[in-house]
Amino acid sequence: MIIQLKGNIEAPAEQRILQTLESKKYKPMKVVTQDGAYIIAVGKAEIDIRKIGGLAGIKDIHRVSDAYKLVSKKWKIGNTKIDLGDGVTIGAGDFGIMAGPCSIESKEQIESSIQHLVKNNIKIMRGGVYKPRSSPYSFRGLGIDGLKTWYELARANGIKIITEVMMAEQIEEMLPYVDIFQVGARNSQNFNLLDALGKVDKPVMLKRGISGTMDELLQSAEYIFSNGNERILLCERGIRSYENAYRNTFDINAIAMLKEKTHLPVIADPSHGIGVRQFVDPIALAATMAGADGVIVEVHATPEKAFSDGQQTLDYQQAAHLFEKLRKTRALVNRL
Amino acid sequence: MIIQLKGNIEAPAEQRILQTLESKKYKPMKVVTQDGAYIIAVGKAEIDIRKIGGLAGIKDIHRVSDAYKLVSKKWKIGNTKIDLGDGVTIGAGDFGIMAGPCSIESKEQIESSIQHLVKNNIKIMRGGVYKPRSSPYSFRGLGIDGLKTWYELARANGIKIITEVMMAEQIEEMLPYVDIFQVGARNSQNFNLLDALGKVDKPVMLKRGISGTMDELLQSAEYIFSNGNERILLCERGIRSYENAYRNTFDINAIAMLKEKTHLPVIADPSHGIGVRQFVDPIALAATMAGADGVIVEVHATPEKAFSDGQQTLDYQQAAHLFEKLRKTRALVNRL
Amino acid sequence: MIIQLKGNIEAPAEQRILQTLESKKYKPMKVVTQDGAYIIAVGKAEIDIRKIGGLAGIKDIHRVSDAYKLVSKKWKIGNTKIDLGDGVTIGAGDFGIMAGPCSIESKEQIESSIQHLVKNNIKIMRGGVYKPRSSPYSFRGLGIDGLKTWYELARANGIKIITEVMMAEQIEEMLPYVDIFQVGARNSQNFNLLDALGKVDKPVMLKRGISGTMDELLQSAEYIFSNGNERILLCERGIRSYENAYRNTFDINAIAMLKEKTHLPVIADPSHGIGVRQFVDPIALAATMAGADGVIVEVHATPEKAFSDGQQTLDYQQAAHLFEKLRKTRALVNRL
Amino acid sequence: MIIQLKGNIEAPAEQRILQTLESKKYKPMKVVTQDGAYIIAVGKAEIDIRKIGGLAGIKDIHRVSDAYKLVSKKWKIGNTKIDLGDGVTIGAGDFGIMAGPCSIESKEQIESSIQHLVKNNIKIMRGGVYKPRSSPYSFRGLGIDGLKTWYELARANGIKIITEVMMAEQIEEMLPYVDIFQVGARNSQNFNLLDALGKVDKPVMLKRGISGTMDELLQSAEYIFSNGNERILLCERGIRSYENAYRNTFDINAIAMLKEKTHLPVIADPSHGIGVRQFVDPIALAATMAGADGVIVEVHATPEKAFSDGQQTLDYQQAAHLFEKLRKTRALVNRL
Repeated sequence: MIIQLKGNIEAPAEQRILQTLESKKYKPMKVVTQDGAYIIAVGKAEIDIRKIGGLAGIKDIHRVSDAYKLVSKKWKIGNTKIDLGDGVTIGAGDFGIMAGPCSIESKEQIESSIQHLVKNNIKIMRGGVYKPRSSPYSFRGLGIDGLKTWYELARANGIKIITEVMMAEQIEEMLPYVDIFQVGARNSQNFNLLDALGKVDKPVMLKRGISGTMDELLQSAEYIFSNGNERILLCERGIRSYENAYRNTFDINAIAMLKEKTHLPVIADPSHGIGVRQFVDPIALAATMAGADGVIVEVHATPEKAFSDGQQTLDYQQAAHLFEKLRKTRALVNRL
Repeated sequence: MIIQLKGNIEAPAEQRILQTLESKKYKPMKVVTQDGAYIIAVGKAEIDIRKIGGLAGIKDIHRVSDAYKLVSKKWKIGNTKIDLGDGVTIGAGDFGIMAGPCSIESKEQIESSIQHLVKNNIKIMRGGVYKPRSSPYSFRGLGIDGLKTWYELARANGIKIITEVMMAEQIEEMLPYVDIFQVGARNSQNFNLLDALGKVDKPVMLKRGISGTMDELLQSAEYIFSNGNERILLCERGIRSYENAYRNTFDINAIAMLKEKTHLPVIADPSHGIGVRQFVDPIALAATMAGADGVIVEVHATPEKAFSDGQQTLDYQQAAHLFEKLRKTRALVNRL
Repeated sequence: MIIQLKGNIEAPAEQRILQTLESKKYKPMKVVTQDGAYIIAVGKAEIDIRKIGGLAGIKDIHRVSDAYKLVSKKWKIGNTKIDLGDGVTIGAGDFGIMAGPCSIESKEQIESSIQHLVKNNIKIMRGGVYKPRSSPYSFRGLGIDGLKTWYELARANGIKIITEVMMAEQIEEMLPYVDIFQVGARNSQNFNLLDALGKVDKPVMLKRGISGTMDELLQSAEYIFSNGNERILLCERGIRSYENAYRNTFDINAIAMLKEKTHLPVIADPSHGIGVRQFVDPIALAATMAGADGVIVEVHATPEKAFSDGQQTLDYQQAAHLFEKLRKTRALVNRL
Repeated sequence: MIIQLKGNIEAPAEQRILQTLESKKYKPMKVVTQDGAYIIAVGKAEIDIRKIGGLAGIKDIHRVSDAYKLVSKKWKIGNTKIDLGDGVTIGAGDFGIMAGPCSIESKEQIESSIQHLVKNNIKIMRGGVYKPRSSPYSFRGLGIDGLKTWYELARANGIKIITEVMMAEQIEEMLPYVDIFQVGARNSQNFNLLDALGKVDKPVMLKRGISGTMDELLQSAEYIFSNGNERILLCERGIRSYENAYRNTFDINAIAMLKEKTHLPVIADPSHGIGVRQFVDPIALAATMAGADGVIVEVHATPEKAFSDGQQTLDYQQAAHLFEKLRKTRALVNRL
């Protein structure tokens, strides 16, 4: 059960609500976010929710039986729009394209990427400064210094930054320079990291685990939300299947289903979702057609020279074509 | 290696080719189809294919190192068009929609379905008369009598028939009444059935196995082709994954990749691919956007009363909407 | 619901049972096997089975709510013993080892294999004469002539034969020469083949599908049983997973679970289950420890020269060691 | 390439080695552990390792081409023994049984568990004080206070403690009270946590990811080792597959393969590996037979009242039987 509290609720009224819930053997948990205050109550007893709804100080009340609550569309019917400022928004009708290299490599590379994005009217740049790598002997990214340089150049050009955070301790340092924190597939159930990101007032894009279920993804989002941060985007990036013809199996079903289960924006990552450059286009377009609120694409001036994952990375010309096709596809979605 | 023979090749020239191949320790196999005669030669030795290509009676020669040969785009660059007669075609630019019930149930049901298809200008009707069922205690279909009734009504209305064949012995009896033989996912590697369908001059739509790989699907198609039948369509119908939120996981990557690997038309089956009625639309549209040459969709006047699989079946109104959206989506694909 | 009929039941009594079931809206199906006559009745209504059980001519009655019925341990608590004659038995306490080459290649190879088996006191020889091959260009086995030669040599040495049948039409020709028909993983849901094998009075070993579930395997066995053949063995041969370090993922859980769900003997195929020679031993021993009623192992005089799958095949010395370890392991299972 | 340095190597000799490697375009990384000092060098050039091996200060040198290096059996042929003190050891011939509840719940529960372990001569107790939970609304464990109580009672009874650590920040606080840090499946690629555990001189048991590969598991172990901690155990706990008949699919192949690929001890977790109480025994015994160096089992006085996962938990009597069977099985393994 989700109870949204009125903004001006006073302590005794709140106390009354909590006591009533506990008397029904419901375990209440208070959640305060940027946008509101809620009580989430979990219990098994049959309960007449109108009686609780009638108590003072309650703005709205709903029964949500899913394992996830606040991220469910059963709670919030209208879709969530993520506002990055300067008119850059994703979700609730606004389509977002994020593009850039796998890893931030150098000042020159950042400048070149930004120029490419500006030219193509793309507002959000992706890139890794902390890279999760299977092997301890691989390059792990330029770190916070790379991020600062990137930030400076991006801001000067009106570009927003999305980048991966790998542990809670990095958040504070990264905070001033990041527009969207990305949680990678391997950290999709790193609950301490999710808790910490819930305490921050910056949007978080949460990737589905390598073999994560719909339920696990939404519950991981619930971790962030229930710690106080409503600004969450979900990202489908392909699952691990038996098929080795591609690096991951992009789960188009997930796009369709998430759009119904949750009010959060759903982003498609075709670069990882298939992992082969020449197939990034059809997967990106298909995901858009299935209802995705945006895509995130790997682009590099010279893919074959990129740090890691060049195999799935588009060059500038390929990317420019894709952007155009994405816009036409999205326009069709809006007309249908 | 694939060698296409000239139509007028004489026995001694052919003998010469075979001997040359055997002298290089290549194992030659002759394939005669509706459209041509080929020698497929498999071997390991380094070989100058120009020397073989210079022999008399050879129309074309190519090295194809994949496990599949004749179905590969390395052999035939132009896409295959399947012609069902009366102007009904699929592939090589022509988009095909197939629709109808899971099972053929009664004369009334057939008439109702056909009326629905005619009204929506759909030319190919799907339906099962032999149903593969996990349990021996389930309804197994109306059989050949159902097919004859269906044929009569379909022909009278200009509708083509696609239906599943489950064993080689059924082929002969079914042959006059079928426009496309469908091979189900469970029979995707029933090699004797594939051999038998290779000897028939009717198109065959081959479904990917429940956990079939790209390679296995293309090799199964090669079974049909190498027995003499070039008229093959491939069908992606979802794979079995760990995710239980839907009945199968539609593999959109497969659509993109098959369009590059083979010249055969690629059909999407969103009904089985996700298995949940309300998500059939986005999957069908996404597959079209990814390049599919057609879709096959389950439709029933009253899905909740359908024999089996009503859960994934559209009603007439839903289907009519989907058809329209598919046509608009396909029009966009043609423009991009 | 399963109703076992008395041997001497007369037509009117049987009619009475059928009518009673139909009056309750239960769909009855009569099954006659080598060992008994049954009525399987499927329905949804609440029903007092004692009332039906009280009718004349009924030997036993049980409610079995699983999708599979006659193969369930809920129906038959005692385990099934498969008797191949000459004192060779598997199941219900008797452990069976089957060994031999992937493919039957020549008279010399058969003789050598048999000598090896006789020396090690192994009574059942495996080998393929019809080989299911992904590619149409691969060797498909020696066929019926190979089987006849094999039979002659095997009989002369007291060896039983297990070999794969790929289609219903092969059964009649193979019948005199086969002690156990094997159904391969790719045919695990080839329902017509299963139907046909149900009409034969020879044991059938049914392999689990490449990504078959427990339920599907047991329902496929039910196809055979409900067509009249109770002599069924089940075989776990590894499933397809995301892991590529081995060719299949042997599902040890399946051994444990099948031993509880069904009264049929459960055989382990470690050769395919892991697909790497040096690991066949630990998997065979583990499966035995988990309760398997037998193992089937690929053995060849010179594995590196074997037709297909030499990679997973043991040589004679390795096999002899394994047989001894299997016997000691089975002895421990009996003591625990 | 792995170079083990002599204990008394002096700075100039070490410098010389590094320079030589860099001159060959090899990237050297120094690793210092409890047991030795190593240089790991990664590069592509052909190199005569004898020439490097001839430099002063080198104790041993090997080429290891796998993505993991120091954990490979190609580097260290003898198996690693983990010594927990007081004669409690695992690996290199010593079999270890760890048992206890899913979660630490109360002082009474700890006392009861310890009494049960002492009675059965089990030396290592498992239990969670920090619990990774899919839902933010679930009980997350008693935390550090629970651990302290547990420690006191365990030490008084000669029992060692294995418990899960979820983030780097918890390590310092937990350190005095833990004998083995457990890394859960969801954190199997939480590289920052692995780095941090590499800097601690306490053994770490690393669980395979929910869909982790052999290579990923070994590379994650390499993270710990290359940060300085050689005391690592690996744990197979079942993978996620399409099969829903059990909660996970225990990968017995992994036990067999890990025993060949690495010198680290391999532990089996049958409780999670199948997730159904009545099947824990056969899986535990099978894993032992396949070569596991130990098992970890969930046990609770009253499984049906246990916090979480009672479904897979043995009661005291079942566990006592299993311990005995495990010892007999291990004795057989030693004899074979």
